[in-house]
Parts: sequence; structure tokens; C-alpha cells
Amino acid sequence: MDDKLREILTKIQKRQIDIETGLKEIENLYYINMKYAVLDTHRQRRKGFPEVIFCQGKTTEQVVAIAKELMTHSEGNILGTRATYDCYQALAKEIPTAEYYETAKAIVIRQGEQTWVGNILVVSAGTADIPVAEEAAVTAEVMGNKVERLYDVGVAGLHRLLSQTGKLLEARVVIVVAGMDGALPSVIGGLVAKPIIAVPTSVGYGASFNGLAALLSMLNSCSSGVGVVNIDNGFGAGYLASLINQGIQR
Amino acid sequence: MDDKLREILTKIQKRQIDIETGLKEIENLYYINMKYAVLDTHRQRRKGFPEVIFCQGKTTEQVVAIAKELMTHSEGNILGTRATYDCYQALAKEIPTAEYYETAKAIVIRQGEQTWVGNILVVSAGTADIPVAEEAAVTAEVMGNKVERLYDVGVAGLHRLLSQTGKLLEARVVIVVAGMDGALPSVIGGLVAKPIIAVPTSVGYGASFNGLAALLSMLNSCSSGVGVVNIDNGFGAGYLASLINQGIQR
Amino acid sequence: MDDKLREILTKIQKRQIDIETGLKEIENLYYINMKYAVLDTHRQRRKGFPEVIFCQGKTTEQVVAIAKELMTHSEGNILGTRATYDCYQALAKEIPTAEYYETAKAIVIRQGEQTWVGNILVVSAGTADIPVAEEAAVTAEVMGNKVERLYDVGVAGLHRLLSQTGKLLEARVVIVVAGMDGALPSVIGGLVAKPIIAVPTSVGYGASFNGLAALLSMLNSCSSGVGVVNIDNGFGAGYLASLINQGIQR
Amino acid sequence: MDDKLREILTKIQKRQIDIETGLKEIENLYYINMKYAVLDTHRQRRKGFPEVIFCQGKTTEQVVAIAKELMTHSEGNILGTRATYDCYQALAKEIPTAEYYETAKAIVIRQGEQTWVGNILVVSAGTADIPVAEEAAVTAEVMGNKVERLYDVGVAGLHRLLSQTGKLLEARVVIVVAGMDGALPSVIGGLVAKPIIAVPTSVGYGASFNGLAALLSMLNSCSSGVGVVNIDNGFGAGYLASLINQGIQR
Amino acid sequence: MDDKLREILTKIQKRQIDIETGLKEIENLYYINMKYAVLDTHRQRRKGFPEVIFCQGKTTEQVVAIAKELMTHSEGNILGTRATYDCYQALAKEIPTAEYYETAKAIVIRQGEQTWVGNILVVSAGTADIPVAEEAAVTAEVMGNKVERLYDVGVAGLHRLLSQTGKLLEARVVIVVAGMDGALPSVIGGLVAKPIIAVPTSVGYGASFNGLAALLSMLNSCSSGVGVVNIDNGFGAGYLASLINQGIQR
Amino acid sequence: MDDKLREILTKIQKRQIDIETGLKEIENLYYINMKYAVLDTHRQRRKGFPEVIFCQGKTTEQVVAIAKELMTHSEGNILGTRATYDCYQALAKEIPTAEYYETAKAIVIRQGEQTWVGNILVVSAGTADIPVAEEAAVTAEVMGNKVERLYDVGVAGLHRLLSQTGKLLEARVVIVVAGMDGALPSVIGGLVAKPIIAVPTSVGYGASFNGLAALLSMLNSCSSGVGVVNIDNGFGAGYLASLINQGIQR
Amino acid sequence: MDDKLREILTKIQKRQIDIETGLKEIENLYYINMKYAVLDTHRQRRKGFPEVIFCQGKTTEQVVAIAKELMTHSEGNILGTRATYDCYQALAKEIPTAEYYETAKAIVIRQGEQTWVGNILVVSAGTADIPVAEEAAVTAEVMGNKVERLYDVGVAGLHRLLSQTGKLLEARVVIVVAGMDGALPSVIGGLVAKPIIAVPTSVGYGASFNGLAALLSMLNSCSSGVGVVNIDNGFGAGYLASLINQGIQR
Amino acid sequence: MDDKLREILTKIQKRQIDIETGLKEIENLYYINMKYAVLDTHRQRRKGFPEVIFCQGKTTEQVVAIAKELMTHSEGNILGTRATYDCYQALAKEIPTAEYYETAKAIVIRQGEQTWVGNILVVSAGTADIPVAEEAAVTAEVMGNKVERLYDVGVAGLHRLLSQTGKLLEARVVIVVAGMDGALPSVIGGLVAKPIIAVPTSVGYGASFNGLAALLSMLNSCSSGVGVVNIDNGFGAGYLASLINQGIQR
Repeated sequence: MDDKLREILTKIQKRQIDIETGLKEIENLYYINMKYAVLDTHRQRRKGFPEVIFCQGKTTEQVVAIAKELMTHSEGNILGTRATYDCYQALAKEIPTAEYYETAKAIVIRQGEQTWVGNILVVSAGTADIPVAEEAAVTAEVMGNKVERLYDVGVAGLHRLLSQTGKLLEARVVIVVAGMDGALPSVIGGLVAKPIIAVPTSVGYGASFNGLAALLSMLNSCSSGVGVVNIDNGFGAGYLASLINQGIQR
Repeated sequence: MDDKLREILTKIQKRQIDIETGLKEIENLYYINMKYAVLDTHRQRRKGFPEVIFCQGKTTEQVVAIAKELMTHSEGNILGTRATYDCYQALAKEIPTAEYYETAKAIVIRQGEQTWVGNILVVSAGTADIPVAEEAAVTAEVMGNKVERLYDVGVAGLHRLLSQTGKLLEARVVIVVAGMDGALPSVIGGLVAKPIIAVPTSVGYGASFNGLAALLSMLNSCSSGVGVVNIDNGFGAGYLASLINQGIQR
Repeated sequence: MDDKLREILTKIQKRQIDIETGLKEIENLYYINMKYAVLDTHRQRRKGFPEVIFCQGKTTEQVVAIAKELMTHSEGNILGTRATYDCYQALAKEIPTAEYYETAKAIVIRQGEQTWVGNILVVSAGTADIPVAEEAAVTAEVMGNKVERLYDVGVAGLHRLLSQTGKLLEARVVIVVAGMDGALPSVIGGLVAKPIIAVPTSVGYGASFNGLAALLSMLNSCSSGVGVVNIDNGFGAGYLASLINQGIQR
Repeated sequence: MDDKLREILTKIQKRQIDIETGLKEIENLYYINMKYAVLDTHRQRRKGFPEVIFCQGKTTEQVVAIAKELMTHSEGNILGTRATYDCYQALAKEIPTAEYYETAKAIVIRQGEQTWVGNILVVSAGTADIPVAEEAAVTAEVMGNKVERLYDVGVAGLHRLLSQTGKLLEARVVIVVAGMDGALPSVIGGLVAKPIIAVPTSVGYGASFNGLAALLSMLNSCSSGVGVVNIDNGFGAGYLASLINQGIQR
Repeated sequence: MDDKLREILTKIQKRQIDIETGLKEIENLYYINMKYAVLDTHRQRRKGFPEVIFCQGKTTEQVVAIAKELMTHSEGNILGTRATYDCYQALAKEIPTAEYYETAKAIVIRQGEQTWVGNILVVSAGTADIPVAEEAAVTAEVMGNKVERLYDVGVAGLHRLLSQTGKLLEARVVIVVAGMDGALPSVIGGLVAKPIIAVPTSVGYGASFNGLAALLSMLNSCSSGVGVVNIDNGFGAGYLASLINQGIQR
Repeated sequence: MDDKLREILTKIQKRQIDIETGLKEIENLYYINMKYAVLDTHRQRRKGFPEVIFCQGKTTEQVVAIAKELMTHSEGNILGTRATYDCYQALAKEIPTAEYYETAKAIVIRQGEQTWVGNILVVSAGTADIPVAEEAAVTAEVMGNKVERLYDVGVAGLHRLLSQTGKLLEARVVIVVAGMDGALPSVIGGLVAKPIIAVPTSVGYGASFNGLAALLSMLNSCSSGVGVVNIDNGFGAGYLASLINQGIQR
Repeated sequence: MDDKLREILTKIQKRQIDIETGLKEIENLYYINMKYAVLDTHRQRRKGFPEVIFCQGKTTEQVVAIAKELMTHSEGNILGTRATYDCYQALAKEIPTAEYYETAKAIVIRQGEQTWVGNILVVSAGTADIPVAEEAAVTAEVMGNKVERLYDVGVAGLHRLLSQTGKLLEARVVIVVAGMDGALPSVIGGLVAKPIIAVPTSVGYGASFNGLAALLSMLNSCSSGVGVVNIDNGFGAGYLASLINQGIQR
Repeated sequence: MDDKLREILTKIQKRQIDIETGLKEIENLYYINMKYAVLDTHRQRRKGFPEVIFCQGKTTEQVVAIAKELMTHSEGNILGTRATYDCYQALAKEIPTAEYYETAKAIVIRQGEQTWVGNILVVSAGTADIPVAEEAAVTAEVMGNKVERLYDVGVAGLHRLLSQTGKLLEARVVIVVAGMDGALPSVIGGLVAKPIIAVPTSVGYGASFNGLAALLSMLNSCSSGVGVVNIDNGFGAGYLASLINQGIQR
């Protein structure tokens, strides 16, 4: 900041600019500096970070309005999570390029050139975990990552997973989505030395306590290299995986 | 009961016995009948069920006294769980045949002919789980079961387990002892179709909440055929496994 | 494995088979070996283990499709748990041999010869626990076990249970289903020395916390020989009881 | 109150007393009235309610000082709960009539005529529950109740309890003390129609969570007529039982 | 039992009865003895204990059928708890004497002479707690107790309670129903020395956790003489209060 | 900020200062502005906010060193919380003006003129709650508030509180410290319309769960105007009360 | 009280009033005194404390009836919280001056002169927290406080908050409403030395456990000066803030 | 695998090797293939992954023995976590190159060339969190990562963090260690778009419930890009950060 400020002051001293102009330039500089971190975020966003709308709890009108406003400010992809099909249909009337990912319950509006880098693998333990896994997968894709899927390979039939170790080895980040006993991240963490993002799901009943059992199991993983996000938080897992993969990419 | 009662009544009618004698015989009959279930328990106990002393919280004097009294009433093995070495030493002075299993913290006084049937496999996830596993193993052995051990084969290094599937297939009952994420019973339950007794241990820290994470994980096992006992309850697992194995034996 | 592999190599050396054939035979051998545990499962399944569909959360179309596919691969019984009557009706149109067990909410498609061995006793504490008990009972029956029922014998009227101790003594495995205080498994475990599978139910209100009270009570049973499954998990209890009973059978 | 107030006012009007004296008499009247409820308590206390010192967390000096002060104000018994033997010894030097109940960890200083009415039965499930049971029993005795004890009759050996139903039927109130699964109050509540005070104890390990399992089990008792006090709260149970029994007595 | 048995044996000896008759008489004697406790319950039930139907979760047809069957076996009152008005209307068509208590959601069928003894006071903290309080009150009334009500006297306006201490002093048992902070039983327990039955309700939101806050508060009451029943368990409180009051009555 | 910045720029333009000086002045301006909020804190601290050392978990040497350093930077009082007497003694050797508040386990070093404003009332339910209450009281005093104490007035003896309503009415803020059932803040909140800061304590046993019962009770207070701080957080309550009272003071 | 009582007694002594009149006057005096605290409340209520109706769980008829009755007794504002629009519409037909605050779900009937003092700032972390924030804001306004709002300034975008520190510094009390991680009160408490009332909301999913995560976070705030109210308790926060602000006002 | 297997078979067919040699070669091939995943792990380990000894709960003799054995098998660094200084001293006698990191309680034995890549930033909220932070930092360093530290920048004094945003922007992964309210990861996640690994610590008291409050807060972070590890699990955080950073490195 010092160099730019010195430059402004020199211009004032040399009367190349008047004081009011200097004031504004410093203010800009100042805000830019103060919001440095924020700007950094912005810079990265331009490189594949989507604008995100959490649709649940918003009216269809609100979602449409926000989406349209975002399109005027952002040149990148726009992602709507936890969206109903009804909501999508209303949106599609106004924004025909919008796509709907039914299992992920996600709306995607693609803008600009689409590129996919890295290799994020999304693994699900059971078929009932797939909606959360898809939310993670679509989030990562929209953020510019190449995503592989490996579904229904829970530990109750270990051979399903073992016959696919190749996919595990090719990934740079592995998202593991599991409910019930939440055992899968430990098993995968014992097989490969990759960053693993574990997503507990609320799949289960009784003493699963809506995902608490899986959450605790994952936090206590006997394998190292496992980070955990909130129950059913597919979006958060996809987002974190993208941050990791994009970093690797550079 | 009817036949025996009829017999007594007939003897009274025929004045072969007097009424007071009849009263006593009926009373005996009655108590024997009322305690039928209990007697059944006794009968089975004579076939390998040990008398058990939970030593923790009892003074050394109490343990010694109880052990000596049990020896006068029982012809089978006697098991003392959660016993310190000091307690054992005091006991051994009076009962020199007593043995001490240090890891299991168990005292065993063997009486009568020792036979071992069936095949119970005790599996532990980590080395820290071994004391609980040994309590299960010693309990099962004292109850007349042949016990195999397979320790330190947790899911963080899956190959350790996979290279020992033979042992899993040879067992009639599998006790699986694990702390932290409690994932091992699910994996083993997915490999073999055997009754599995899962024992969560308090091994772990932080969000393991003294074994709660492992307990919930096991109750929510995505594999079928898993029954769970209390946290650190190696004795209970060994006892239940023996009931199952002895049943198979017959 | 060594002998069979040696055999193949000898045939290659003797040019009885060509190398491509040898490759395939070794591959088969290899996979068979690697999936040894899995095959063992398959072998046991052919002896009475049903294919199972967890219907809850699946569309009627999905259930029908899976059931039809399973029928083409399996010669044994097929079990659908947590199925609505509507789902059954749709299925029955395509598979007329399907039966519906209303209380258990189970669909059963029987295939092959039906045999029933052993003796599994299913006990329920209250009438409200019967649906879970029936899920256990039907599961065990479909897996080829003879099942007895003893319902509504909770500890609030102990005489109901005590007058039926005969049934307890005849069973090889006892499934005990109870909500509220979950006290029944402890009482039965104190009466007979049999493997007991305790199933807590979500029956109750207030501080039952949807079955948590019963679950904790059962895990802390003062009687030995009690293994616990998840809340409302009648299927899991029936499955585990079958594993035990079938083992005894052999 | 009105009559007494009218009397005072009349005396003032008749100048039998001056205004200052009237003021004081009204004030006394007023406070007595305001503390009406309290006085009622006092009245009942004189009929057998002890003064109680919760010794835990107090220094020996404090306990001695409080005990001596209570003796100057109260003519009834004095009870010290959760007292160490050391504390008792210090007290006994100054108050030689003090007695110590070792198991209950209670100090009792008896004053006035001792009478015992009613019949309170204190039942314990296991031997480890006896200290809490004794705290209840001693509390009730000191409050003037006749107390019967029935210890170590837990549901794991039901015949021990069934052979003592006579004691249950003779009691007017039953205190049931149990840890682990807390099943005993439900069983006793199913046998007799008496007010039952259930006391969960912290006896147990693992998923007993220091008495939580027993507490929840008791709150969800499938038998009616069960009221629950805090974990290990033997004093509270004895006190409540006394209130009930003394009421019956009148 | 001995005397009656001796009598039977004497009759057999004297051939006043034949052996088969003797067998049957002993069997009757035996069952009567074995169910001694149960009979005691029956005896008391005839003295004001209602037959109870927990209507929730039962179909209207089931409730009607059970009610009609109970009427053929019982001469006392019949109580249906947690009943909808629809259920009552269906019942009233067949049993016109049935009454409905709307707030308590209770159906009452009165039979035999109605008497009311003792004095049970039911106190509620807020208006929202009244349904639970009414369930307690109606239960107690149907069991033959005189019931007073004191509603909406929570501690947020303490003067409402203090102005009614007379009612507290007249009661033999006090049922205190409160949600939210559950503070009322402690306050009342500090005012009067009566047995207090505390009923936590699920009234509240947020960190009341459906009555858990009130439950814990009541279990930790700083006043002695408080027994707690399950959350929202008005019936249980009324039943326990009746047991206490009826005991006092005798 | 604009005016000051304009001033600097004008001086540069007029060459009254050189560019490097201008750079530094702007930087100062910038930091002062950015830390505006912080400065505000500093300003208020000079008006009675103590520097605080949380002594628990620090060595005596660390506490002494920090205290000495704080004395060089601060002209106000210094407060050390959760300090042992040993720690105080070591400190007193180096800083003889240090005082020790034994019950509160607090060290106070007074500096500058001491003034006390407002009127904060600290109420405790039981004697066991007094250490936490004293921590609150000493904290408030050191921060320049006049503090009244009203101890051992729990709801189990309501007359103790009611006879002291005058103190409640005179206070501007009331801190209420209670363990066990945590009922006292609700009662006081129902008596006076003052801001109440409720402090749950870990006093209690069993289902108090180390203060959880009191915490939940206070959060669900049926009286309005109650804010809650962490369990045993006397310091936090005193600090918040001071913020409120000092605000009123101005 | 003494002076007034002396006065009455003097009048009796002087026979200026007869004894019956004196009795009544003393009684009035007595009740007035006994309800002193209550009266104090009333006095303050007249100064801006609204009468409050918690509409949730009440029928529209009940709300209207209560509102009308309150209007006859109170000259101040009337507040109805958690009211539906339907409820408002029914009310507005009878009380046309009633206003509806849709986001806050509050009904307000203003009476008498409206004044606003002090400066309460209501901050919300996210847009989903606004309904709770509005309940707080409207409550405070109705109680006569000037209220500022600062919404959607959660810590995920810290610059939004930092650019508004001015508003924080101007407030006398700050209400901070946040769900999810509940981090905002700690951040604001670190910026300004004002009393902060933290309101956790049930906004979030998974391991937010309906606001428990935010609640615990706030109770453990690393910033001093934070008091917490119940989850979603906007009304309670507004009420407490008003008590503080009105105190400051005087 | 096919090519290599074909090669072997061809050699057998051509009798270049005999059958026994072929058997062994196939076996080797087979095991290598089966342990593919494992080998991958090994390969990566050689590239900077330490051998790790969890010293807590092991005797000094065991730690020394394991360390010496690891040195014979591994050419990389060896890390001992949760080691006492006593343990280190015993180890240092035998392995003089061992170093001790006191705050981290870690033993490090460096072997081979030490290189440091990437840039991992470890942030702690308070000084009490530093031991956990140091465990993370030392773990990451031993694994070959360049580590920056930024300690004691909790949200209670936000300016401390804001003045160091440069460090945040330079990091490739950020580990954030915080106890109490666990708010720091949300704030940092709102400032920079980097993968954040949040480590809750057990620092705090009362309702922190040994780190549960911080854990839940972090799982519910309103900022995206946050993965959570177990309470106090500094090692796990350092390990995961290394996996991410090393991936970026390649």
C-alpha cells in the first residue's frame, strides 16, 4: 500500500491532482486495502467460485429475484442449493439456461467458459446417501472441478469398494458421504493417503439420532487425514474439496 | 408336576405317608416348580458356567471370602473380573491354584475337568482395546470355550484384517472390540455371516465421549448380524458368546 | 489356493491349455479367493438367507423393479421390510405369489422349499411393541427358523411372564422387544440362560426420548447374556437370531 | 388473623396498651402470619422432622458448629448426611451422644422420645446400591418411621424378590434403589399397589452415564405409581417416604 | 397357605374328596398363592382403582371394544386417557353413560357408588400446563379422591401462589405441573411439608428441549419431599397421588 | 476522518511537511480509525474497567510477571480470578498492596482513586453457591460498582427472600447465583422489574450434570428480563452487571 | 409501613375511626405491603411496560378476548407475540387501532403517548435470523425504546460489520441474534464495551441441533459482557434490553 | 497385472522357469496387487510421512522399543505425540538425536534430508490453545511442511487478527485452533478463501462441556470451506493439512 499512497501524495505535492481528488483516491486505496481479504475472495471467485443461493426457506419469487441480480454482477456460475423442482420451473421461465439437478436438488446457471481441473472423487456408502453426495458433486463441478462418483460402496459389502481402489488412487481429494455407522471414511482413510472430507448424513433411524452417530464416528476416525463437515452438508464438502483441489491445480 | 402331586396325594389317601410328610413333600415340589427357571440356570451352570466375582469396589478381604465360599458350593470354575494384582496375591496365599490374567485383570480358579468346545474369535481394533478383548477372551475360556485371538486389525490398515479372513471363517461367534470410530464390527459383519458381538471401548478422546461414539456407531452398523453390549463390557461379550457357542455345541 | 494354481500351471507347462485359457482360470481363481468371505456369505445365503429390500424411502416402482431383479438371481426367499400396503398391492400385480404381513409391514416372496429349524422366541413387553416384534418374527421365519411368539408380557404384570416360563426354556434364542423402561430383557435374562437379543422400541413419550431410555436400560442390563440392536430394529434382531439359531442347527 | 388483630385494636381503643406496644404486637402478628406456611413446617418438624446438615463440602469445624447450634434450637433429632468417619469422630468429642452409620455415611444425634410409626420398606437391587439405600433408611428412621430393608434382590435373580413378596405387601411406602438398568421399580410396581419412590444410583459403567440410564428407565416405568428422585439421592427418598408415611399415620 | 393345604390333604386322607378334586383344589390354591401380589392389586382395584385404556395409538374400534370388555369384568370406573373427541363420540353411541373431559382428553365411564376421600391438590404453573394438570386431576377423581385445583400460579407472579397458601396447607398430597423452568415444585416444597409429585410438561421452546429443562430442574429440587414422574405424565401423577392419599385415608 | 486527512494532504500540498512525514501521519490516522472500536474500549477501561488475569492454569511465576507488566501499563485496578492463596502469597511479596479475597479466590491490586457507583445486588441460593457469587461481587466492586450481597435465600425457604424484598427494589441490576434447580432467578424475576443476570453453578449432584440442570432452568425462566452466563462464571456476571450499571450511572 | 400503621392506630385510639374500619385499612395496608414488589412492577409497567399476550397455542377468540380485557385495565401499549396474520385480522375487526408487524409476527395496540428513549441496537447475523431479531426490536419499541437495526452482518463477511462500527458505538445495549455457529456476539463483544444480549436462533441444520450449537457457543463467549436468553427468544431479549436501557435512561 | 502374469505363464510354458518358481512369482504378484492401496501409502510415506507413536498410555520402555524398531525400518522422520518429558529423557539416552518439543509434548527423531514445502498457517485463539496448536505445527513440520504460527488472535480482540491478514493470505492451508465459543474459524473463513482445518479444544469450563461447544460451533460454521477434526486433535489437523499442502506442492 505504501508505494501507491506515496505516489498519490507525490502527485498532490506536485499539484498534479487536487486535494479532493487525492482524498477520493486514498479512500479507494484505503477501502481496497481494508477489504483486501475480501477482494482476494473476489479474485478467487472470478476463477470458478460460484455465487450461491440457499433456496430452502426462500420463496420462489425471492430465489428468482436473487438469481437475476447475481447474473448482473457475476460472470461466473450461479448455484442454487436445496431447490425444489417447482422453484426451478419458475426460474427457468425467466432464465432459460438454468439447469436442474434433481437428485442434488440444485439449480445451476452456467456463465462464461467452463473448465474442469483436478480430480475430486465423491464416494457414497449407500443409495440413500446419494442426494447429499450429489449436492457435493454438483457444487464441486460448478466450481470448476472434474468430479468422479463412486456410489453404494459401503463397508457392509467391502468387496465393492476394494474392487475400485483405482478410482481412490486417482483422486486428489476424496469426499466420503455416509450415514448410519459412518464407518466408510475410516476405511478409505486406511487405504489411501489423500485428504478426505467426511460428510455424515441423517440417513438411519433410532440411535442414529439424525446423523449424530455417523458424525461422532467420523470425528473419531482411527485413520488420519479426515476432516468432517456438518450433517448432510454436501455443499460444504464440495466447496472445501474445491478449495483444496484448486490449490493443488495452481 | 401333576403326576408327582397325584402320587403324593395317593400316598396320603392310602395313608402310606402322614399329612405332615405330605405337606413337606408338596412344599418341596412347589418350590422346585416355582424355581424351575432358576433350576434350569443351575443345570446349565454346572455345564461350564463360572461363578463370577466383580472385584472392583470390593475389598481384598471380601473377594477372598466370597471366593472361598463359592469354592465350597460350586464344582466349576470361578472367575474374578476387574481384579488388581494385589487382590490376586492376597487370594493366592489362601487359594494357591488361583491364576492371574494380567491384561484381562481377571482371576481364575479352575475346578473340575476343563474342556473347550466351539470356536469363539475375539478381534480387537487397536492395542489399547486389548484389555477389554482379553476380559472377553478369558471369560469365554473359563466358561469352556475354545478362543482364538486376532488383535490390532483396525480399519485404518485394512490389509491386516483382510489377510486373516481365514480366522473369521473358522469362528462360530465373533467378538469385535473397538474404540474411537467403532467401525470394525461393520466391516467384519460385511465379510462373514456369523453372529457378531460388538464391544465399544472407552478408548479415544474428545468427541469419543468415553466410548459413546463407538457405541452409537455399532448400534447403527450397516451390516446385519451385530449385537452390542455395554462400553468396555468384555465380560458380558464373553458370556453372551459362550451362550451362543455352547448352544451350537450341543 | 496353491494346489489349484499348481494344477493350472502344470497344465500350461504340459500345454494342455494355452496361456489365454490359463490367464482366465487364474483370474477366476484369484477373484474367487479374494472374494472368499463374500462367497461364504453367498453359500450361507443359499441356505435360508433372504435377499432384503428396505422399502422405506424407495418408490413403489423401485421396489417392484428390485424385487423382480432379485427373483432372477436368487433361488431363496425375498424379504421387503417397512413396506406399505400400497407398495405391496403394486408388487402383487406383477408377482402374485408375494405375501403381505400387515403388522410387520413386510412383503415376503417365498421361493424354493421352505424349512424351519431351531426355535426362536420373540417376546414383546406391550401391545405397542408388536409391530417391531413382528418384523423380527417374520424376518426369522423367512430365513428358515421356527418362531414362537409371546406378546404383552411386560414387567408391569409379572405374572403374565412367569406363567409362560416354559416357552422361555424351550427357545434356543430369545428376542425381547420393549419400549418405555426397557426392563424386560433384564428380567428374562435373569430367568433363563439363553442368548437374548434386546430390541428397544421408540414406544413411550417424554423422557423416553424416542427409545433412548429403553436402549440405555438394555445396554446396562444387570443380567448377563444380553446383546442389543438399534431402536426399532426388528429386522436386525431377527437376522442375528437366525445366525445364532442356524449355527446351533448345524 | 382477624380476631387477634381486632383484639389488639380494641386494646388500643380502650387504651389498655399504647400505640408503640400495638405496633409491635401487630408486627409480630404480621410476621407470624406471613410465615404461616413456614410455621406449619415447624409444627410438623416438631413431630419428627430432623434438622439436616449436608456435611459434604463443609469443614469438620463447620459441621460441629452447626450441629451444636441446632441442638440449642431443636428438640428433635439431628441428621448429618454424607459425613466422613473423621468428621463423626471430631463431632463425637463434643457431642458424645452422636452415632455414626458407616454405610449410610450419616451422623445421627437423637433427642427426645424416639417413636417409630408406619412401615417403610427400602429395597436395593445390588449390594453396590446399599450405601444409597442406607442413607434413605437412616433418614426415614431418624424422622420417626419404622423401616424394613430388603437388599440385593435385583431382577437378574427374580426369585430372590418373589420369595419376599410378603415384605412388599406389609409396607405402606416402598423405596426402590437401583443402578445399571434401573428395572427393579417397574417390577415391584407391577407386583404391589403401593407408592413407590425410585432412586437411581450411579452404580454401573459405560453407557450407564453415571446413573442416567437408571434414571431414564425409572421415569419411563411401565408400572404406575412410581415417583423418582435424583441420582443417589437416598436422603430425598427417605424424606419423601416419611412425608407419605407420616400422613398415613395420622 | 399351610392351613388350607393341610385341610385339603386331610379331606383326601379322610376320603371326603377324591384325588382329582384334591389336585384341582391344590392347583387353585397354588395359583392363588403365586399370584398373591397380583391378587392384592386386584383387591385394591376394587376399592377405587380404575381400569385404564391408553387410547392414543389405538383405533376407535379398539377403544370401544376394550371398553366394552372391561365393563363386563370390572365393577369400578373405567378411564380412557389421551382420547380424542371423535373417539369419545363413537364410544358414547354404544356406552351412553360415558363422559368426556375435553381439556384432560379423558373418557370416564363411572360404575358403582362414587366416593371421594382425602384431598389432592393439583397446581399448574401456566395455562398451557392445564391439559396435563387436568389429566392428573381427572385420574385422581376417577380413583375416588377429592381433588382441588389451583391453576396459573407460576413463580413469575409469586403473589398468585402466596395468596393461596391455605389450599396448600389443606391438601394431603400436592401435584405440581410445570413446564419451562420447572421452578414451581421447589417453591411449593419450600412452603409446605407435604408429599409433592412434580410433573414436568413439554411446554416451552428452544432450550426447554420438550420438557427436559423442567424435568432436570425438578429432579434437582432444592426442596425435599419432591418425587418426579415422566414429562407430561398427568395420569401417572394422579395415580401415584391416589395411592398416597388412599393410604392416608385408611 | 476526512477532515484530518484533508488537513494532512493540504500540508503536503503546501510542502509544510514532506511526503514521508505525510505517509506516517496517514498511517497513524488509518490505524487509529481502524482500531476505533478498540480505542473506545480503552477509553472505557480507564473509567473503571480492570485488567484481568485468569490465574487458573498459569504458573505463579506467570501470574506475577503478568501482574507486574499490567501495573506498568494500566492506572486502574488489576483483578486476578481463580487464584490460589499460594499464588497470592508469591505475588504479595513483590506487590505488597495486593489483596486476597479468599472465598472469591480473587487477587485485587487497587490503583488510583476508588469510587463506587450504582447498586448491584448479588444474590445466592445456597451457601455452596457463595464462591461464585463472591467472584461476581468482587469483580463488580473492582470495576467501581457499589455491591450489596444477599446470600442463602434459595426457594426452599421462600420467607428468607420475601423478608428482603427491599434490597431487591433498591438494586439497579441483580445477579442471581444458583445451582441445583436454578429456580431462584425466575422467582426474583417475578418480584422485581430489574435486569437479572443469572449464573448457574455446578453445585448439585446426579442429574444436575455439573450445572446443566440449573443452566437449562434459567434459560427457560418463565419470568422476563433474565440473561444467563456460563456455569460458574461469576466473573462474567460481575462484568456484565458493571457494564449495565455504569451505563445507568452516566 | 410503620408510619402508616401508626397513623391508623392513632386514629383508632382517638376513636376517629371504628375498629372495623381500622381492620380493613390495616388489611389493605398489609396486602399492599405484601405485594410491594408486585406494585413496583405495576408502577414500572405504567412507565412503558406493555401487557403481553403469547398468542401461539391460543385460539383467535382467546387472543381477542384477552386483548380487549387488557385494554380496559391498562393504559399502556399491548403486545401480542407469535401471532398469525389471521389472528391479527380477527383482532383488527374489533380493535381497529391494532397494527401487525409481519416479520416479527407481532400485534401491537398502542395506547397513550408514545415516547422513545435510549438507543438499543438489534443486530442479526443472517437474513434467516431476522424474524427473531424483529420480535426483539418490536418488543423494545413497544416498551418505549428507540431501536436501531443492523441486519445480515454475520462473521462470514466480516467487512459488513466492520463498516458499521459507528452504530455499535452509539448503542447503549446491543441485542445480537445469530444461528448456526453463534459466533457474532463474541465478535461484537470484542469490539465494544456495551451490555450484549445474545439470542441463539434455531436457524441451521444437522449438528446445529435446533439452535443448541449457537446457544453453547454464546454461553462460552470468549468476550466478556454477554448475557444469553433462550433459543429464538426475541421477546425476552427485547424485554431485558428495555429494562437495561430504561434504567440507563433515568 | 495381466501382462506380468502372461509373462510368467509364458516362461512356464517355455520351461524357462519351473512350476514352483512360477507359483512364488504369481504369489508375489498377487500380494503386491492386493496391497496396491497399501503400497501407495508406503510410497507416499517415504516422501515425508512420519512414523507416529501415540505415547500416551504406553510405558517409557514401550515407547523406546517402538522408536528403535521404527528406526530400523524407516528412513524418514519419526514422531512421538503426547509424550512426557520423562519419556523423552529415557529415549534420548538411547537415541541422542531425539528432540523434544515441550509445548507440543512431541518427540521428533529426524532422519534423512529435511525439506519444507508449501505454507501451512497455524492459528490459535487463546494462549491456552497453544499446546494443541503446537502439536499440529510440529506434526506438519515433521512431515516436511513449512509452518507459520499466529497465536492468541481470538475474536475477543479482533484487531489482533485483522492486523495479520497478510499471513492468512500467504498460507495454502490454515489450521485454526480454538476452544470456548469456537468462533475463530468462522471469522477466518469469512476473510480468506483457503481450506481451513478447525480444531476445537477442550479449553473452557461449564457449558463448554470439554470442547463440545467449540466443536458444534465449528461444524455449523457460517463460512464455507471449513473441515473439522476431533477435539484437541492437533496431530490429526497437522496430518490433514500436510496431505493438502503436499498435494498442492506436487
